[in-house]
Amino acid sequence: MKKNAFYAQSGGVTSVINATAAALILETKKHKNKIGKVYAGKNGILGALREELIDTSKESIAGIKSLKSRPGGVFGSCRLKLKDLNENKKEYERLVEVFKAHNIGYFFYNGGNDSADTAYKVSQISNELNYPIKCIAIPKTVDNDLAATDSCPGFGSAAKYIATSILEASLDVQSMSETSTKVFILEVMGRHAGWMAASSALARTLKNDAPHIILLPEVIFDQQKFLKKVKDVVRKNKYCVIVTSEGVKNAKGKFLAESSTKDAFGHVQLGGVAPYLASLITKKLKLKNHWAVSDYLQRSARHIASKTDLLHAEAVGVHAVKYAILGMNGVMPVIVRGKGKKYTWRIEPASLSKIANVEKKLPKVFITKDGFNVTTRAIKYLQPLILGEAYPKFHKGIPKLEKLKLIEVNKKLTNWEF
Amino acid sequence: MKKNAFYAQSGGVTSVINATAAALILETKKHKNKIGKVYAGKNGILGALREELIDTSKESIAGIKSLKSRPGGVFGSCRLKLKDLNENKKEYERLVEVFKAHNIGYFFYNGGNDSADTAYKVSQISNELNYPIKCIAIPKTVDNDLAATDSCPGFGSAAKYIATSILEASLDVQSMSETSTKVFILEVMGRHAGWMAASSALARTLKNDAPHIILLPEVIFDQQKFLKKVKDVVRKNKYCVIVTSEGVKNAKGKFLAESSTKDAFGHVQLGGVAPYLASLITKKLKLKNHWAVSDYLQRSARHIASKTDLLHAEAVGVHAVKYAILGMNGVMPVIVRGKGKKYTWRIEPASLSKIANVEKKLPKVFITKDGFNVTTRAIKYLQPLILGEAYPKFHKGIPKLEKLKLIEVNKKLTNWEF
Repeated sequence: MKKNAFYAQSGGVTSVINATAAALILETKKHKNKIGKVYAGKNGILGALREELIDTSKESIAGIKSLKSRPGGVFGSCRLKLKDLNENKKEYERLVEVFKAHNIGYFFYNGGNDSADTAYKVSQISNELNYPIKCIAIPKTVDNDLAATDSCPGFGSAAKYIATSILEASLDVQSMSETSTKVFILEVMGRHAGWMAASSALARTLKNDAPHIILLPEVIFDQQKFLKKVKDVVRKNKYCVIVTSEGVKNAKGKFLAESSTKDAFGHVQLGGVAPYLASLITKKLKLKNHWAVSDYLQRSARHIASKTDLLHAEAVGVHAVKYAILGMNGVMPVIVRGKGKKYTWRIEPASLSKIANVEKKLPKVFITKDGFNVTTRAIKYLQPLILGEAYPKFHKGIPKLEKLKLIEVNKKLTNWEF
Repeated sequence: MKKNAFYAQSGGVTSVINATAAALILETKKHKNKIGKVYAGKNGILGALREELIDTSKESIAGIKSLKSRPGGVFGSCRLKLKDLNENKKEYERLVEVFKAHNIGYFFYNGGNDSADTAYKVSQISNELNYPIKCIAIPKTVDNDLAATDSCPGFGSAAKYIATSILEASLDVQSMSETSTKVFILEVMGRHAGWMAASSALARTLKNDAPHIILLPEVIFDQQKFLKKVKDVVRKNKYCVIVTSEGVKNAKGKFLAESSTKDAFGHVQLGGVAPYLASLITKKLKLKNHWAVSDYLQRSARHIASKTDLLHAEAVGVHAVKYAILGMNGVMPVIVRGKGKKYTWRIEPASLSKIANVEKKLPKVFITKDGFNVTTRAIKYLQPLILGEAYPKFHKGIPKLEKLKLIEVNKKLTNWEF
């Protein structure tokens, strides 16, 4: 029997999550006997709870295709983790109510760890609440910390942005180092896993190229060792480029970003790791430095997206539909790397029970002994993920955005209160 | 008579300053009867004082051409302002000594305000020290604050980076705003002039698009008015994107970046304006926010350079040589905008006396009355400068850099001591 599909974006967005959405929507059009309309949740799962469903069938095909080059989450995302079924049954009953009202038989949830958890819980509705639904989680996260998948769509593009930015900025610092800036620090995302900081190593062509120091959340920050290392690099190399994860912690388990500064009223400020390290270097080493914090820029930089990453993002969207039609429930299409020397990949289904709430950190063999760098094995793993360019169209000097309709379906139910 | 040329890069570098160098070097090859070799100063004017001269004739033509897509200053830059001739005659005598030793008759200095000043002083050697030299300053600065020229090579590319980044990041914030981040702040360069912050307005397609607030060094920061504005924007729009110049000051004339934080020992920290504003918004408005600081990334982002800017950068390099050959001294090739509706430009010579040490700020007619935005006139001025893309070649996922020889000429003189 033909059923409609629900698709939603969850958690921090990426520069290619909309490419997944586009691929998924276009794939459903090949299976019109099984899947009717795709309703996109306005602001993620909230859209289902609030019955705010965007009817993607109202968009032109060109409009859907244009999503391929649009960063951010076009339907809106949310940070909301559903409780367990026995803790908050009302939420699940509401979902079933909305699904029934709109004849929804497929649930696609595009997100990270938390979202895999939510999708896993929703997949259980099928039995527990006796409502037939095929539930597929689709991977997405710049953090690259999902289990079961070789890499996460969104990460490769952030990695390419970081490697390119570090290459470019290091040429700048190098030019200035004789009479001015000696140290440059870039802070990148990664609260618990250092994948993004690690990817800066891809900026190197020669062994001594920037970045010279990589600080990972997996390695406890040792101030003395760090300062000695900076000093040594500047002595040898004349300048030093540092990439730090936002989530670097000291021996007490405290984020460096928290431990640093107080404002004029004595309140602790979340100042960022980069300015913290910069101030340390100024005070202790008297070396002129500059620092940058990429923040949202790194995860929305669609203009420098990785072609490989974009293909991954599309492939997981396509396979999510295929799996749903095959009747699978509680799975995620994951990226599996081929065994050969040349990088190859394919998509396979993996059970959500193995993915939900698991956080994949950098393995020890990816980190050098001194803790300030990544190994050749890490670089081998990371390298293929940033390959290829996939520029968006530009108009008037900026990336061109197609106008979308984003029309909501008429509500059939009473409003939902939290 | 045939003379060699000296070329040097000065001050903060840009993503297209090497394109100027390439164009200049290639242009000299068309005038072999007048110009011999081009010696590039290692680390700017220091290279002349120290007799550290890079022989660009040792590079392959392909190598020189590759500079077109290489950010940073390939020969090294420096921050060094020569004193007046009567204050420090020794420096000028040393320059003449080096010029004589290497038969240098042309002096090309690629920089901003300070560099125009240095070039102006060197141009006076001709008379004062009776050494014939043709001295041409070549414009370059992301700050866009040089007098006499319609715009400065390097600025258009930084502007394109900022507009593109704000467009991309604003789509990210918009996606997150329902349950998470409501305010995003990007700090850009510009200590005294707000050209770069202003260029973020080019991210808009519709009037209410991001950025919603632009903070300029030309406008005194009023905390109450600012917080009210943020609150209003979030109420109306659900999220607020702010672009701030690093050089924003309060009514006491103090940089916001300085006035903010003290570390655990009570030392004042230079924390950056973005984290300062973020902490203000957290404390006073309780709005979740994110912030980014572009720093060197914005001025070295060759991967998103403006084609128009790149053409400007090349044209000033070519015209510098043409002017020198015509026997001009103490001039700068500047960009002159055509009067028509369609953007046209040409290069003309301007006297260095009118450019040295003059700082061009945003004119009042470019700033809206409330001080939080730029006018349509500003956008009209800025728009053409970011037009066109000029992607570098990529190799292994990152911009490809050609290897250069950078061979120094044998020294003929004794070492120079400061």
